[in-house]
Amino acid sequence: MKKDLAEFKKKNRLEQVVVINLTSTEPPVDLDAIPSEWKKLSATLSKPRACPLAASSLYAIAAIELGMPHINFTPSVGSDCEAIEQLAIERGVCHMGRDGKTGETLMKSVLAPMFARRNLEVMSWVGHNIFGNMDGQILRDPVNKKTKQLSKDQLLGQILGYSPQTLVGIEYIQSLGDWKTAWDHIHFKGFLGTPMALQFTWQGCDSMLAAPLALDLIRFTELASRVGETGKLTFLASFFKSPMGSDEHNFELQYAELEKWAAKHSE
Amino acid sequence: MKKDLAEFKKKNRLEQVVVINLTSTEPPVDLDAIPSEWKKLSATLSKPRACPLAASSLYAIAAIELGMPHINFTPSVGSDCEAIEQLAIERGVCHMGRDGKTGETLMKSVLAPMFARRNLEVMSWVGHNIFGNMDGQILRDPVNKKTKQLSKDQLLGQILGYSPQTLVGIEYIQSLGDWKTAWDHIHFKGFLGTPMALQFTWQGCDSMLAAPLALDLIRFTELASRVGETGKLTFLASFFKSPMGSDEHNFELQYAELEKWAAKHSE
Amino acid sequence: MKKDLAEFKKKNRLEQVVVINLTSTEPPVDLDAIPSEWKKLSATLSKPRACPLAASSLYAIAAIELGMPHINFTPSVGSDCEAIEQLAIERGVCHMGRDGKTGETLMKSVLAPMFARRNLEVMSWVGHNIFGNMDGQILRDPVNKKTKQLSKDQLLGQILGYSPQTLVGIEYIQSLGDWKTAWDHIHFKGFLGTPMALQFTWQGCDSMLAAPLALDLIRFTELASRVGETGKLTFLASFFKSPMGSDEHNFELQYAELEKWAAKHSE
Amino acid sequence: MKKDLAEFKKKNRLEQVVVINLTSTEPPVDLDAIPSEWKKLSATLSKPRACPLAASSLYAIAAIELGMPHINFTPSVGSDCEAIEQLAIERGVCHMGRDGKTGETLMKSVLAPMFARRNLEVMSWVGHNIFGNMDGQILRDPVNKKTKQLSKDQLLGQILGYSPQTLVGIEYIQSLGDWKTAWDHIHFKGFLGTPMALQFTWQGCDSMLAAPLALDLIRFTELASRVGETGKLTFLASFFKSPMGSDEHNFELQYAELEKWAAKHSE
Repeated sequence: MKKDLAEFKKKNRLEQVVVINLTSTEPPVDLDAIPSEWKKLSATLSKPRACPLAASSLYAIAAIELGMPHINFTPSVGSDCEAIEQLAIERGVCHMGRDGKTGETLMKSVLAPMFARRNLEVMSWVGHNIFGNMDGQILRDPVNKKTKQLSKDQLLGQILGYSPQTLVGIEYIQSLGDWKTAWDHIHFKGFLGTPMALQFTWQGCDSMLAAPLALDLIRFTELASRVGETGKLTFLASFFKSPMGSDEHNFELQYAELEKWAAKHSE
Repeated sequence: MKKDLAEFKKKNRLEQVVVINLTSTEPPVDLDAIPSEWKKLSATLSKPRACPLAASSLYAIAAIELGMPHINFTPSVGSDCEAIEQLAIERGVCHMGRDGKTGETLMKSVLAPMFARRNLEVMSWVGHNIFGNMDGQILRDPVNKKTKQLSKDQLLGQILGYSPQTLVGIEYIQSLGDWKTAWDHIHFKGFLGTPMALQFTWQGCDSMLAAPLALDLIRFTELASRVGETGKLTFLASFFKSPMGSDEHNFELQYAELEKWAAKHSE
Repeated sequence: MKKDLAEFKKKNRLEQVVVINLTSTEPPVDLDAIPSEWKKLSATLSKPRACPLAASSLYAIAAIELGMPHINFTPSVGSDCEAIEQLAIERGVCHMGRDGKTGETLMKSVLAPMFARRNLEVMSWVGHNIFGNMDGQILRDPVNKKTKQLSKDQLLGQILGYSPQTLVGIEYIQSLGDWKTAWDHIHFKGFLGTPMALQFTWQGCDSMLAAPLALDLIRFTELASRVGETGKLTFLASFFKSPMGSDEHNFELQYAELEKWAAKHSE
Repeated sequence: MKKDLAEFKKKNRLEQVVVINLTSTEPPVDLDAIPSEWKKLSATLSKPRACPLAASSLYAIAAIELGMPHINFTPSVGSDCEAIEQLAIERGVCHMGRDGKTGETLMKSVLAPMFARRNLEVMSWVGHNIFGNMDGQILRDPVNKKTKQLSKDQLLGQILGYSPQTLVGIEYIQSLGDWKTAWDHIHFKGFLGTPMALQFTWQGCDSMLAAPLALDLIRFTELASRVGETGKLTFLASFFKSPMGSDEHNFELQYAELEKWAAKHSE
């Protein structure tokens, strides 16, 4: 991998390369099996059977070792572990991820704060996503789906401060192609316990929602690299379903971080 | 009116009274006809034909003259004019309004910022509200409805920075009673002009959404009065569809103002 | 008009021409002003001021006088009056109409029977149609809209046997183009008066729904003409929102008539 | 069981008892293991290990042997096998079932014919049902759910004449209690392959929808018994998701059978 990346840079006479992972989801990885020190982790890399990492992490390491910033747009682990963060700091490279926030989860990250601010208790939040692109085909595999569902589901508890019953359905419906349709049903309690409901349907073209985020991430990361940032770029949290190094899932508060950073670096 | 309010206070041996307008919507008033100086406006009060004010403003004046803070939960003018603000400052009284933000407009104030932040151009935003309570009956009158529609519609332009085609329907459907159902259809453009859509239906009990806001407004206003605030209480903007003295309609940014104020006054 | 039609037939060396009205909606016409005898009506044709007919009826007359069957796919009057039916019978020509049933009304004609059969009392039926094609532009004119709304609204009473509160909204939203989106909210009562709700959204391309109906109507009408049918073709009721000569609006029962007729004429 | 039923009849001095199964769903049963002759099946009844029947069928047999008509409102097998039909005919008893058609499937049985009649090809039909009553709790068990899903899904192929991709989700969401909410997304093709969509949400109180059907079924069955009907009462097909002895799933055509039978037996 390192060889491919280095050759790509040389052949195209590039000053800088930002590596972004846009592949489909991997099966879940046992995070406890990954040593928290880079020294120990790197020792396993040459032993395929002993190495606890999946492909997404190996690519992240390859990029970082070459001094190339790395962005993980997928729910896979990528560079999201203590040991790889150590490597990034050591090499003076920046990186960020995890799982681009394009549609239904974006909605959750703006609606959940509203319920919290208004003290409307969410009793249940059901979401069903149907779509028919290759991403959908890969998520038909229950093992891959698990990784994705976790990424889509965790933010509600963080924002609300309690855990309503939730359900995240992801289903492959061939005829829809790249048009992802999500139906969400939110059952909540108003004053004196009165039950009320909000439902929404989101009909978006998945790739067309992801593409501009990928471009913006590359631009921001390149700038961050140029101004000398290293390690996790937490100011990019608003782009991700599971932002590395951040517990903030409220979209507006995440966005405020981006604005603050941008204000500092633009003149 | 002043007599009624004074007697109410006396009879109930109250230290403080906060007056809150919870009546139905009035017909629109010609704002240009209201003099901007309190001196001039007050001179018209004794001449019914010359006075340009509607009932909501007369009640607001009565309250303020008695030193009672005033909150306008309705789309009517109430205390929302330069002359009455002068009176409030002069008497050292605080006041705020206009039109409690309970359902569909609350949704707009959290969703519109999302479209703006993500550079998803809103092409059209259609909203239909159906409900069958007395408020709905009064809004059947097209003259009253006009006041309400303006209040519900203005925030999109302010948040987005441009004006998509909008439509705000308010219809009386008797069988629904106090259960307001709103359907919103938002047509927006993604990357490379790809058209996408978000639809939501909100099923809420109108009074049960308004009641806790009214209670919180009274509490905050009483505290504000106690700590010596006078004039418009702009930190309460998050409660209103048309917050007096504020151009901010983004719910999270409005809420941040409330938190800042609350932090200052709680120890 | 007659000249144009005759020349079209001659120039293209056609044996038979079926005339179908696919224009936009006309303003309502005073039906009481139309004499019920063809003799009297025809006498007004040469006097523009005295003639109570709109363009759609004049075209229908022109076609029928030339022996050409006529189909009215619009909500305009067309051939839908006693006097023109007399003319059609006299000339041995067949005709039918009124207002192609493509989307929301089609849904009503299959859902309303379900509520009736199951004794679920419909309390209110609200429908909003938004779209941005030329048809929509013409329906922005409240006068034209009236004609259309009547055509969309009448069937509920006929199918249910009572008249729930109804509302038919038709709104021009430019960005939608030919994509008609309809939201319907049906509020109904179950056992012991329990209120329940059905909502649907229909997202259809208006022209693509109308085109195959127009083609089928032309084929059926040509066959009917060939087998000697004259006057109203009531067996085509399933194609129309306001089928001439028929009080049946239940789609399945209308369709059964079509099947019966087709069975008789196919071997 | 027979003893219980006989005592119930005697104690209440009843002339006639109609037994209706309103319990929750059983796990699926291996239908191939049930002998098709009553003689052979009855021989297994005394040998618990050899008997291939589940409780619902044992109760059906008990009722029929006592001359009591039996209705199966559940998706369980009940009396739906050749051998029990033989018994019913032999004893001169009538019976019917299977799985009361109350909400989403009722909708399917009126909407699918519309798509078929209009030659609008259904590409996919996704349905998600969420509810929180005891029925929902029992359907959380994937084994029980399977029985129900089959019952809800089969009618589309029969009505449409081809099999679109379908998905039937049934999920227990505690906060909803008896309020079943179903979201259905139907993706279909119009003229020249243009993709279009219909979505609906059904919000009904499950028990309140089932109760009047149960009452009507008892009345019709009692009348059928009185006029001497034996075996399956196929004229009751409109009440069931999987009507025994009938391949007809179009609700209007099923209802026509009911009307025909009712006309014959009412004067």
